[in-house]
Amino acid sequence: MHLIDLIARKRDGGRITADEWRTFAVEYSADGYPDYQVSALLMAIFFRGLDGEETYALMDAMLKSGGRLDFSHLGIPVVDKHSTGGVGDKVSIVLAPLVAACGLAVPMMSGRGLGHTGGTLDKLEAIPGFNTRLSMAEAKAQVERLGCALIGQTGEIAPADKKLYALRDATATVEVIPLIAASIMSKKLAEGLNGLVLDVKTGAGAFMPQLDRALTLAQTMVDIGERCGCPTVALMTCMDHPLGVACGNAIEIEESIDVLRGGGPADTREVTLALGAEMLVLAKLAPDAGEARLLLEDALADGRGLEKLRAIVSAQGGDPRVVDDPQAVLPQAKAQALVVAHHPGIVQRVEPRVLGRGIIALGGGRTTMEDEVDPSVGFRVLVRPGTHVTRGTPLAAVLAKDAAGLAIGEACVRSAVVMGEDEVTAPALITHRVDARGVHEL
Amino acid sequence: MHLIDLIARKRDGGRITADEWRTFAVEYSADGYPDYQVSALLMAIFFRGLDGEETYALMDAMLKSGGRLDFSHLGIPVVDKHSTGGVGDKVSIVLAPLVAACGLAVPMMSGRGLGHTGGTLDKLEAIPGFNTRLSMAEAKAQVERLGCALIGQTGEIAPADKKLYALRDATATVEVIPLIAASIMSKKLAEGLNGLVLDVKTGAGAFMPQLDRALTLAQTMVDIGERCGCPTVALMTCMDHPLGVACGNAIEIEESIDVLRGGGPADTREVTLALGAEMLVLAKLAPDAGEARLLLEDALADGRGLEKLRAIVSAQGGDPRVVDDPQAVLPQAKAQALVVAHHPGIVQRVEPRVLGRGIIALGGGRTTMEDEVDPSVGFRVLVRPGTHVTRGTPLAAVLAKDAAGLAIGEACVRSAVVMGEDEVTAPALITHRVDARGVHEL
Repeated sequence: MHLIDLIARKRDGGRITADEWRTFAVEYSADGYPDYQVSALLMAIFFRGLDGEETYALMDAMLKSGGRLDFSHLGIPVVDKHSTGGVGDKVSIVLAPLVAACGLAVPMMSGRGLGHTGGTLDKLEAIPGFNTRLSMAEAKAQVERLGCALIGQTGEIAPADKKLYALRDATATVEVIPLIAASIMSKKLAEGLNGLVLDVKTGAGAFMPQLDRALTLAQTMVDIGERCGCPTVALMTCMDHPLGVACGNAIEIEESIDVLRGGGPADTREVTLALGAEMLVLAKLAPDAGEARLLLEDALADGRGLEKLRAIVSAQGGDPRVVDDPQAVLPQAKAQALVVAHHPGIVQRVEPRVLGRGIIALGGGRTTMEDEVDPSVGFRVLVRPGTHVTRGTPLAAVLAKDAAGLAIGEACVRSAVVMGEDEVTAPALITHRVDARGVHEL
Repeated sequence: MHLIDLIARKRDGGRITADEWRTFAVEYSADGYPDYQVSALLMAIFFRGLDGEETYALMDAMLKSGGRLDFSHLGIPVVDKHSTGGVGDKVSIVLAPLVAACGLAVPMMSGRGLGHTGGTLDKLEAIPGFNTRLSMAEAKAQVERLGCALIGQTGEIAPADKKLYALRDATATVEVIPLIAASIMSKKLAEGLNGLVLDVKTGAGAFMPQLDRALTLAQTMVDIGERCGCPTVALMTCMDHPLGVACGNAIEIEESIDVLRGGGPADTREVTLALGAEMLVLAKLAPDAGEARLLLEDALADGRGLEKLRAIVSAQGGDPRVVDDPQAVLPQAKAQALVVAHHPGIVQRVEPRVLGRGIIALGGGRTTMEDEVDPSVGFRVLVRPGTHVTRGTPLAAVLAKDAAGLAIGEACVRSAVVMGEDEVTAPALITHRVDARGVHEL
């Protein structure tokens, strides 16, 4: 197969067959095609798209380019959650131990921060000693023992996707719905799941801000999951402002532990419970979302979720005392300061992208995969759209490594928190549910 | 400058500035950008195009990425011709010595065969000993001495274009009008010209078969030339069937010499005279095309053109006796056979692409730049659209290296020569003239 023929065909609006995608994934994983041809193909796909069949075939080819987990011998349902990424999104860290405590097996494979968003792996590694680099065999053994492992994508999973994603990132071909859907699903379906819940973010801080495109992405992923025999549900959640209060690595671990203790910000708790309820229903551990929610609230109330996190942290080499006294265990920022309102007014917007880039500017995020991350820095965002402030009201706390960082952080907060005089209603937290039957407005 | 920003901007329909193109050409020549990013940019340009300013800026940046010739001290006009390529197109080999004999300086830089078309360099190298690989200094000295050199693109000319062309060829981004125009003109304008005549082919055997696209290409190149202070004229010539009789390397040299002797096929002679007349007018050696034509016909009649070719062949290491007895000097095919008509009828079409690919199949063309070329093989095409044939009329002679080649060649001829019963008028040879004032139908 000559790749140039596929490039020319896609460029001219033609289709690529399942056999061709299979050959492509095998050859590309083995370095059989030069990146300069593959990037031309990716840009042709940006303009011409992939239809449903092609998207599925590419996903399937990437999935089969690597190894797969199999938990069928466990006899308990295996369900995972994936988020398209946002600012302050620490849901995985609360959710995985919580649903595992309810009887699910959760082989949760997460990513690192990139662009303006943080990554679950970077957050977990704020816990001293925590090791996210388990092999597939180690992850599998831990899931069998504890019901949950929190790990990164190993080289064994979907290697074709791994190469392709890095190339997309370097060639301005990330934002292509079928490529995003095939990439996410090739990794998730390698986990041997009985069900998958997707948290598709919409709004200013999402990778795909427009609702219609985000809904198309959600439906594309749901269709792929269903076609693979993995019941899949997506919730569309709001990323017009950061989720919760904490935005940063160590402080998001702290907020996660707060939620597992039954506290924490209402929105972080709410998104976690909604996604968790979908997981329990897919796993048939509850007949409907209402019942499922009661099970989750029980596991919060009696501390089973927190104890599950303690067990996971301990199993993965982290300091388990973090769940008892997060501030004593987690790295603390050397410099901290409150940014207060100069004038009275009403908060119009809190721009997640500005804060996300602010974390990077403070040293707490990545511009390349090789960047070292300072886990201690970040923001505690103390206002929401609609909050009335007077002169002196704290808008946010900046956590930085020094005075220069505090100045950068203050500038970010003042830019992110847009003040005005209009009354503002905070946008709905969860707006749509997408399943095999289509889109349902909530 | 981050190339990914340019990729994303072009992808979204934005413009790239002259400064950015300048940086691009310098960096890319120095291997400062990875090919996988450049190919993504090329594919984005395929879909979004370049406007006139961008095309000029890219051309200028590629031109300035390398060295330039300067003949201003000679005090005689320097004019070149460029053809977009076809089958049987040996015009350069006749034209360059002919106009040099009329007092022009012609630093003619040609290419090798690729795709279904032959290349002037491959044809010249059919002459034993002929060296097309002169340095810029050698070529310049020869032009000063003889008025003409027939050479390949040196590494010193437009290195950014050289890299970019190879990448376009591997990524299905060749057929993009602004990229073609910028590529051709960056090389031609490096020759230090006072005028340039373009032979833009249209029809089935041209790289750009559709007339409207070919006219756009011609006008784009004319506009670039004029803007650079190099008066430029394009003639649109017919490539619906091969030009002349000979299609192959050695036999095209033979036909070229026939034309310089005052004979040869009428169409080869006509296209040569028309292009040559434009060159003499641009050089101000004649007031109009009619007068210019008389000068050229004189130089054919008194053998000055032929003697100029002899001097060039001799200067470039070739055997000068080729102009006296081409068949004795040029390599001859070991196997030759006539393909005759099986049935009476009228020739409807003679497909240049089929014959061009046939030459490659016989070993006389290239599929990669590294291929060795057998100069002796090819076709003498003995019929034209509209020719009436009876059973037994020769359609073409096949020149091959063995019996297997003859069989391949016969199959090509039978496929290329499409017979029918309708009367056919041969298409016009030269249909339009394009200059700074626009397109003129002839």
